[in-house]
Amino acid sequence: MVGQSTSGAAPFGHELRVRYGECDAQGIVFNANFLAYVDVVLTEIWRESMGSYDALLATGVDTVVGEANLRFRSPGRFDDVLTIEGGFDGLGRTSTTLKLWFRRGDDLLCDADIRYVFVDTETWEKAPIPTKVRTALDPFLLS
Amino acid sequence: MVGQSTSGAAPFGHELRVRYGECDAQGIVFNANFLAYVDVVLTEIWRESMGSYDALLATGVDTVVGEANLRFRSPGRFDDVLTIEGGFDGLGRTSTTLKLWFRRGDDLLCDADIRYVFVDTETWEKAPIPTKVRTALDPFLLS
Amino acid sequence: MVGQSTSGAAPFGHELRVRYGECDAQGIVFNANFLAYVDVVLTEIWRESMGSYDALLATGVDTVVGEANLRFRSPGRFDDVLTIEGGFDGLGRTSTTLKLWFRRGDDLLCDADIRYVFVDTETWEKAPIPTKVRTALDPFLLS
Amino acid sequence: MVGQSTSGAAPFGHELRVRYGECDAQGIVFNANFLAYVDVVLTEIWRESMGSYDALLATGVDTVVGEANLRFRSPGRFDDVLTIEGGFDGLGRTSTTLKLWFRRGDDLLCDADIRYVFVDTETWEKAPIPTKVRTALDPFLLS
Repeated sequence: MVGQSTSGAAPFGHELRVRYGECDAQGIVFNANFLAYVDVVLTEIWRESMGSYDALLATGVDTVVGEANLRFRSPGRFDDVLTIEGGFDGLGRTSTTLKLWFRRGDDLLCDADIRYVFVDTETWEKAPIPTKVRTALDPFLLS
Repeated sequence: MVGQSTSGAAPFGHELRVRYGECDAQGIVFNANFLAYVDVVLTEIWRESMGSYDALLATGVDTVVGEANLRFRSPGRFDDVLTIEGGFDGLGRTSTTLKLWFRRGDDLLCDADIRYVFVDTETWEKAPIPTKVRTALDPFLLS
Repeated sequence: MVGQSTSGAAPFGHELRVRYGECDAQGIVFNANFLAYVDVVLTEIWRESMGSYDALLATGVDTVVGEANLRFRSPGRFDDVLTIEGGFDGLGRTSTTLKLWFRRGDDLLCDADIRYVFVDTETWEKAPIPTKVRTALDPFLLS
Repeated sequence: MVGQSTSGAAPFGHELRVRYGECDAQGIVFNANFLAYVDVVLTEIWRESMGSYDALLATGVDTVVGEANLRFRSPGRFDDVLTIEGGFDGLGRTSTTLKLWFRRGDDLLCDADIRYVFVDTETWEKAPIPTKVRTALDPFLLS
């Protein structure tokens, strides 16, 4: 799967630059910031797939993180440009898992699996993924 | 005024410990985190004066920061215990200025003046400070 | 294991209060901040076990996060007091996993498994856990 | 001066998009994050003027924030694209003040004056601004 992404086959890609304040006293990206980056990436996926995050909310659902799994391979450093690629590992009835690979050039720094649960924006109860959202996310599924 | 605070005459005091992730690659507290600490202190002032921040909101007003002025004297470091003292520099009709001194032992690391504007929780327009809030803040005025 | 911790049998406990700036626009603790809290807890474990984090560094090793796994059960909110309990799930030759449970009262908000790898402070290569550290961490092992 | 910047006459400009996790429970950009944005902008100024922040360090000096003054005019919101313009208000012997205006379209959200003190990278004592740095910053002075 990693090789697949390396080959540029991942359905989604985004770049961001490491900020000074995101590095800790070890001089490397503070680990919690990778989880913050995941959220930046998710916003961009909503923009590309639905037009915007607001367009997702307009369907009556939002997402919450159910589980996050991050594997740290190599440290990120100040001013690194991170290339983040990935996609969804299938769509369940009410949840999906986003798989992401964070790289600096060819070096894999971190890979993450984030399970999102769809919830009703009124009740905050689990909700089925709306058809409109399913259709929009289809191009972002990992093959 | 600083001496006054050093002498323990400040109407309010709070302690907090610098977290590892709050330090940057220079190994010192990232400057923006002092402004985040100010917010922690304000929450504690609402707790001491009104019972809680929710009790402030129940009066129909909230506060927004109008202006922040921070003077950095000496760097804070990981695991430092910061003693933060201060109080309000009078109460205007719709705003007030909180003056704070951040110290590690006797060393002044930072002092801050933060002007808060009271706003109506419905309209977000400027609002007079409610009498109940004025009374509650009276013991927290700098002499 | 969760029940064990609930019963107060966990070898380590720490409390912290959710800050306003740690909550996002959904009004709940931004998920990445739980990973930041983990780091706060680790610092406290070094303080209790070794005297301080600096005392760990003095043995010639530091730790880096190899993998983080967080399961989000229920949202945390502003001003919540979180009770964080846990301990280490055995000590390997060069790594260990810290298991933590974050609760508000009896409600489990999040539980986390964080694998730490010990590294040489000079070379940043994997390093065996020093005997002094093993001894110090022994009371912090989950039974 | 504000009008001058609006007219595109400011010597420096940068754009950034507000992240979800940078907004607080009020749904607006947490005030401390504007000070974090200032640091992002400074990094870009070093890139444009010196090639990189590392190139600044190579001259034997670094900068620390001596004073920060932020005036909050209007709230920033999630996903806003902020246009940040500004420049230095002259160069002193060992310090300078960066003036920045944060806008969303034509709306001024915040303006900031940040005084930076140059310090020797070895001794961390105040140091004169090196000639190479003065020359590099000349195009970034406000007229």
